[in-house]
Order: sequence, then structure tokens, then C-alpha cells
Amino acid sequence: MSAADDEIAPLPSGLEEARSAFVALCGGVGGAKLASGLQHHLQDRLSLIVNVGDDFDHLGLRICPDIDTVLYTLSSLNDQFRGWGRARETWNFMHALGQFGGDTWFQLGDLDLALHVVRTHRLGSGETLSAITADIAASLSIPARIIPATDDRLRTKVVTPGQTLDFQRYFVEQQCRPRVEALRFEGADRATVSTGAESSFADDTLAGIVICPSNPYLSVDPILAIPRLRQLLRDRSVPAVAVSPIIGGKAIKGPTTKIMQELGVACTAASIAKHYEGLVDGLIIDEADAEEAEGTSLPTLVTKTLMVDPRSRNELASRTLEFIQRLGGARRIGPQ
Amino acid sequence: MSAADDEIAPLPSGLEEARSAFVALCGGVGGAKLASGLQHHLQDRLSLIVNVGDDFDHLGLRICPDIDTVLYTLSSLNDQFRGWGRARETWNFMHALGQFGGDTWFQLGDLDLALHVVRTHRLGSGETLSAITADIAASLSIPARIIPATDDRLRTKVVTPGQTLDFQRYFVEQQCRPRVEALRFEGADRATVSTGAESSFADDTLAGIVICPSNPYLSVDPILAIPRLRQLLRDRSVPAVAVSPIIGGKAIKGPTTKIMQELGVACTAASIAKHYEGLVDGLIIDEADAEEAEGTSLPTLVTKTLMVDPRSRNELASRTLEFIQRLGGARRIGPQ
Repeated sequence: MSAADDEIAPLPSGLEEARSAFVALCGGVGGAKLASGLQHHLQDRLSLIVNVGDDFDHLGLRICPDIDTVLYTLSSLNDQFRGWGRARETWNFMHALGQFGGDTWFQLGDLDLALHVVRTHRLGSGETLSAITADIAASLSIPARIIPATDDRLRTKVVTPGQTLDFQRYFVEQQCRPRVEALRFEGADRATVSTGAESSFADDTLAGIVICPSNPYLSVDPILAIPRLRQLLRDRSVPAVAVSPIIGGKAIKGPTTKIMQELGVACTAASIAKHYEGLVDGLIIDEADAEEAEGTSLPTLVTKTLMVDPRSRNELASRTLEFIQRLGGARRIGPQ
Repeated sequence: MSAADDEIAPLPSGLEEARSAFVALCGGVGGAKLASGLQHHLQDRLSLIVNVGDDFDHLGLRICPDIDTVLYTLSSLNDQFRGWGRARETWNFMHALGQFGGDTWFQLGDLDLALHVVRTHRLGSGETLSAITADIAASLSIPARIIPATDDRLRTKVVTPGQTLDFQRYFVEQQCRPRVEALRFEGADRATVSTGAESSFADDTLAGIVICPSNPYLSVDPILAIPRLRQLLRDRSVPAVAVSPIIGGKAIKGPTTKIMQELGVACTAASIAKHYEGLVDGLIIDEADAEEAEGTSLPTLVTKTLMVDPRSRNELASRTLEFIQRLGGARRIGPQ
């Protein structure tokens, strides 16, 4: 951990003594940043339920982009500049692959490859993605629990004019160029929530739930498309908050803005509030969108949401936990 | 090709005009060296039938050590100093694999890995090892045909006191330390010879057959254990010669000497002649073993067999082809 980590605001009082547990739902890069801030405060009291809709098979290897990003970010192995994959990565495998006429549209670093090979091998031996992910997290000394939303097959499909694309084909190969008409989460309706996710909601010490600022349509919806997971969130007995991925009417990175436009949704905090209606009790929005606070249907917390370094990630995590605590207090003394 | 390649002895006269084809049987390093010399002279008129007994599955990847060595050697991608794998190899995958608690007893370089991933993926799609190997050879602009002895499962097992080991466990993990009591070629009796190997023997222009100086017990015997392949060799209508892997009563490298001792066989050219009895018409032995020429049951050619550079590989190949031509002439005018 860098020196910057020591400068963060202290954990809201009350949370430390309670040894209370938190659940966070997240996708890739943006979500993983907040997850890393939450882990900084909560350590092993954080359970991260991660999107598997982007998972795919490539060259016979199972790639789980969001789980990988979370693993690398929470172990500080991630490349902060490239935004994906591992720092100090090398690309010799890709070079040789091209030589043999292999598919090179999806970049696989030499270091990154170890994760895919180990996982594919163990999945082939009948182990669950949950068990494998937990082992890999342990080998990287990650304190948080990293839990796939489901161990069943769930695949995000992007409906575009003329063809339905596998998510990675849309996202990487076609670089999000095709217009999105709809998103489908193949297998979600039959998917069983993973036992780890189920038990994290059943934890007696559970104090709150966070939806990380991942793309609501691409990264969080596949999780929420699992009927049992949606039900767990709807039946929650603790406060849930979402962190809006929008800053100043735009998403920081990735195709969120473009997709919201294509789906006919205004790129505003109000849209995010509406999207998570019934599933969260509060929304965290950026200072740049402060004037929208009035228009949303939910209690809002206005704060800085841009995460550019460990300090800002840890700060936003601290604000998020504080907001949950406040909502929890309100709930306890409220009419319900 | 290096400057040294231009200095080799010319191809024996007669061979060039005939456009005659040759078949060579080979295993790993030593065999691949002569194969590369033969390819220098014969180009696409060389069919190499390669041992698959060492093949194994590791981390879910199919590794074919002898085919890989042949592919790398014949495309000049091999590492001449290490003796196996690719030149300018890097080991970042292995580093990350260790981090995840993966099995690290078998070294897989980042460049080398591309071959295993592509092959495993294509085998999984139902393609044959023959088809995949031919494509990879083509992508590396290798003129010779590289043909697995069989597309069926054939695995060399090393019987040692107390346990029977998979070949790579014996060879790499245990570094040939256990005493060899016997060798078994699992699946060989049911294995069908590959169509490429079958057709290379049926070629009208076939002029000769070479058994490369690979380990007779570990690398050539698994090929000869395929009943149809042994029959093809026995029924040959062209001369076959073997190049002895022994120089001065010792094998150049690898466990040949140790294994011959453990199997109770004297480490002599005479033993090699006896081993290939009925399958070859001549034996090439090293100058260091010249005095053994008298004692062998076969016509012998005494020459330099140590291959330390392209020049010496090409020279030995030239001598080998000359010897075959001489035996062919003798055969044509002989009593049979």
C-alpha cells in the first residue's frame, strides 16, 4: 500500500466496533476501484459479488474479465494506466500466437494467461468458479471475499442491428461501435445464485449493501438478472446504496454514455435512481451533478466520485459506508 | 540460414535428379538435429514421422515435446544452448503461475505456450494432431512434412521400482533418477498409424528411410510399437538406415546410456544394430566407435556423427543419404 493510503478519512465511528459485514455488487474497472476502497476499510468483512456475464471462452480458455479485474485491483497487481490487465505485463505469448495464425483480437498477456490456464484447468476438473476464485484470491492475499454472482452459465449478449453479439466481440473486437438495441443475459433466468453470494446476504452481521459505479446495463444488470439475487436485494433488511457511474452527465470511461443514449435513457443521476428503483435506499452522485439531487426519487449523497488514486478510492468508500450508516439509523427510527 | 549452411558437402549426385522422397523416424533433440540436416538437402521431399509417446496433458494443455522440438528445430526457432524450447524465450507465465499456486515442475515459456494453447484448442474442436501439426509447420514455413506417428493415444510409461511413471514425470520431474525396469507404450497395440505416415511409405518416389539418432528405447521404440508402422518398415522396398546415438560408448546427452545400462544392454553400436534388426539395412556409427564396425551384424558407415552446428548436421545428413544410395545400388544388383 502506498503512503497515500494512510491519509484517508477514518472509518465512520460505529462501523469498526460492530465488526459489521458489507456486500458490494460490481463489474469491472470502475466497480473494482470502489471495491478496493471498501476493502481498505473493511478487509475480510467485505463480500464482493462480481458479474460473470462478460465471461467467455477464447482459444479454449475461460476468461472472466470482471473477476480478473477485481482480483488484480484488490491485490494491487492491476495496470493503472492501461486500465485493464496486470502491471508489468509482457506480450510474448501473443507474438507467438500470431506466428501460428492464432486469433489475436483479444489480448492475453503472459502474466494474465496464468490465471486463465489455471482456472480453465480446474473448471475442467469439475471445480466451481467460486472455489477457484476464492483460492486465487487467497494466493494473492486478498482479504475480501470475491464471489461470482453465479456458478452457472450466464452470458451477456448485445443485440445490434443485424446481429446479436457475444459481449467481448462487441466490447473488444468491435470496440462498442455497433448500436445497442437491447441487452440479453442468456441463462440468467435459470441461474442459481452462488452459495457464497447467498450466504453473504444471510450474514447476521450484514450492515449494508453497495452497488458499485459499474455500468448499470452491462455490468450490474447481469447480476440483477439472476432472479434469486434480485429477490435477495429486494428483501434486504439493511440499507443498500448505489454509486452513480455518471459525472457531469457523462460516464467516466467505457461505453456507458453511448449505450444509455442508444437505449433512449438520459445520461443523468435520475436515470440511475430510476434504474435501481426498489433495490436501493440511496444514491451517491458526483458534485458535478449536484443540481440533480432534487430530481431523483431517492435520498442522495453528493460527494466527489472520481477515483484517480488510492486516496480518492478510499475516501469515496468511506463516504459510502457513512451514508449507509446514516440510512440505517434513519431506517431503525423510521416508520417501517 | 547461417553462412555455415553454404559450406556443406553437396547432395550426393543422383538424388537431386530423382526428386526422390525420404522418410525419417525421429524423437526429440538428437533426432531433430539430423532431421534439420536432412531437410536442408531434401526440403519438401522429407517426411518426418515423429514420436508421440512423450505427449502429455499438463494444466489442461496438450504438450507434445518431440513434435515441438522438431517444429522449433526445423524452423530455426529452437534454443541451441538450452537444448529444448525456443530461443529468446521468456518465463513470465511461469512466474505468475507460481503466484497462483499452479504446478511449476514443467517449464512452459511464454512463446512456447502459444503452440500448446493453439493445439489444445484445436484438438478440443475435433481436429487431428496431424492436421494441426501440418498447419503449424506451414505457418512456420517448414518445408518438410512433420507427421505424428499416430493420431491415437499412445503414452510411454516408465516402469521403475515401486511405481510406473508417466514419461514426463520420469524425465523432467524426477530427472531420470529412478531405475528403469521396463518401458511400456500404452495404447500402441491399438494405435492406427497416421494417414500421413502411411502415405509417406506408399510414395512411389520413396528412396530411403532413416532412423534418426534419437534414443532407441525412449523415442524410436514408441513409434515402432505401432504394429502397422513396424510392418511398413519391415516390408520396405527401399533401404533403411539407422544413425547410432552412441559416440565412444556413450550417448551424447539424455538418459540413453543410463537406461541401456539399467536394461542390461551394452552401450555399443552393436547393441543398436541388434535393436533395429530386420528393420534397417545399414548402421551409421561414429569414428570413435570405428572398431565396433566389425562386430555389428549390419553394413556400417563410419563417419563423424556429432552435430554441433548446421554444418555438421548437414554433413551427417549428406553422408546418410549417400549411404542409403549406396545400399540401394547394392540392393538393386544384389541376389534379392
